[in-house]
Amino acid sequence: MAQRYVRVKTIQGQIYYGLLNLNRTVVVLDDAPWQGGQPTDIILKDVDYHLLAPCSPSKIIAVGRNYRAHAAELGNTVPSEPLLFFKPPSSVTADTQPIYYPVQSQRVDYEGELALVMGEVTKNCAPQDARTKIWGYTIANDVTARDLQKKDSQWTRAKGFDSFCPLGPWIVRELSAGSKIQTFINDEEEPRQSALIQDMVFSPQAIVSYISHIMTLLPGDVILTGTPEGVSPLEVGDTVRVEIEGIGSLENPVMAVFDPLESNKEPVSKLPQKS
Amino acid sequence: MAQRYVRVKTIQGQIYYGLLNLNRTVVVLDDAPWQGGQPTDIILKDVDYHLLAPCSPSKIIAVGRNYRAHAAELGNTVPSEPLLFFKPPSSVTADTQPIYYPVQSQRVDYEGELALVMGEVTKNCAPQDARTKIWGYTIANDVTARDLQKKDSQWTRAKGFDSFCPLGPWIVRELSAGSKIQTFINDEEEPRQSALIQDMVFSPQAIVSYISHIMTLLPGDVILTGTPEGVSPLEVGDTVRVEIEGIGSLENPVMAVFDPLESNKEPVSKLPQKS
Repeated sequence: MAQRYVRVKTIQGQIYYGLLNLNRTVVVLDDAPWQGGQPTDIILKDVDYHLLAPCSPSKIIAVGRNYRAHAAELGNTVPSEPLLFFKPPSSVTADTQPIYYPVQSQRVDYEGELALVMGEVTKNCAPQDARTKIWGYTIANDVTARDLQKKDSQWTRAKGFDSFCPLGPWIVRELSAGSKIQTFINDEEEPRQSALIQDMVFSPQAIVSYISHIMTLLPGDVILTGTPEGVSPLEVGDTVRVEIEGIGSLENPVMAVFDPLESNKEPVSKLPQKS
Repeated sequence: MAQRYVRVKTIQGQIYYGLLNLNRTVVVLDDAPWQGGQPTDIILKDVDYHLLAPCSPSKIIAVGRNYRAHAAELGNTVPSEPLLFFKPPSSVTADTQPIYYPVQSQRVDYEGELALVMGEVTKNCAPQDARTKIWGYTIANDVTARDLQKKDSQWTRAKGFDSFCPLGPWIVRELSAGSKIQTFINDEEEPRQSALIQDMVFSPQAIVSYISHIMTLLPGDVILTGTPEGVSPLEVGDTVRVEIEGIGSLENPVMAVFDPLESNKEPVSKLPQKS
């Protein structure tokens, strides 16, 4: 099995990068692996940590309509250049953590995606040089409030809620172009999404090159490469799992969010009068 | 004069938050002021540092069409809810630093704006509580490639180039609602933009509240509150200056960008043959 690079929070509250062993112990690294982090003699047992998203990006750039069949299913054509949008770092969450269903939306969709993790400062990079700038690969769910995406001209709100970017559970260095990406809901055996990474319209190298001619990519920055066909709504109580062959699976439950402003509208319950 | 909060880089390469004195010396703070940073006994002379953007935001959220006359000048109506978009942290630059004119655009506009700097973790904040979450105010230029904004459905590229978010030169804690915002080009006496902050459609408090119901705002995060009427193109060689009464002025020259891919297309010059 490929080496799995993780980021963890210990029960004492420290945050470390690490290597995940098959027995779930973690070898702590002394820095981010793309910053040259080396193994230390600190080993964490599986009861001593929980997984965070495997990196802490300064920005997350996502590509829309990058699989032909998905563009078609929403009535869109494939763009002539990559269609870019941002998700904020505050939207990132980890494997097993909840996706919170916002009160503003009545339709929240999963979008299983391959995520690229950048390893170097990258600016004006030619496509043929882009492969070496990608440090590794992980799994993302580009959760989207579809009704708000249709309503708002910009997708900032629809794509930007807290918890709308599950990422992980770990990073691997290599990925076969023939790898399959699949999304499952609850205990269904049939995947809702199933496609090959190589069916992307713009390849990872083309995307990195295109973005790097606009903005400088930094180590740890994340690029979401688009979702294949088969998007559909999530409901509170669902669990959604995105699998990529050669990486693993990213699973998140969907939970209702408690909104204080809504609760402020509720009249205070009358207390029984003292007699 | 109001206390001016800055972030500086010393000639030795250290980055500090500080207080800027009238004689241009800087009293170094031991942390970001919104994290409780206190004055140290380190004083920097004006030859020992240069100004950076006054904060280092984890995200920059901007509001479009937030002055009626500006929405109208581009043929748009005022939206019923704040129209949000992101600028990436990589787009931030400091006072006096160049705005680089991208090779992909033939029309790059200035947009002078009031910027809010957040002081606390802010989530689901009611409008009446939002004022205390805003730590201070600075000046921004929401530089925009207008042709790409019209071409692309999402504004990611048009608003996201490196150097497209001049910010600074410093933060002040208080701002009068009657303050004027003005933008000047080169040595022109007439401002290209001139409006009152209070003419915004959505107030700073309303904007902070609205955003905080979507995503968690972190200390040091920046919100650009929209530009008034009078946007127009910049040319290489221009200098653009945004002034806000009670803060100061933010000035940046416009420079051509050197694009290595373009230069790769040039044939190598023939060297004289040795005879």
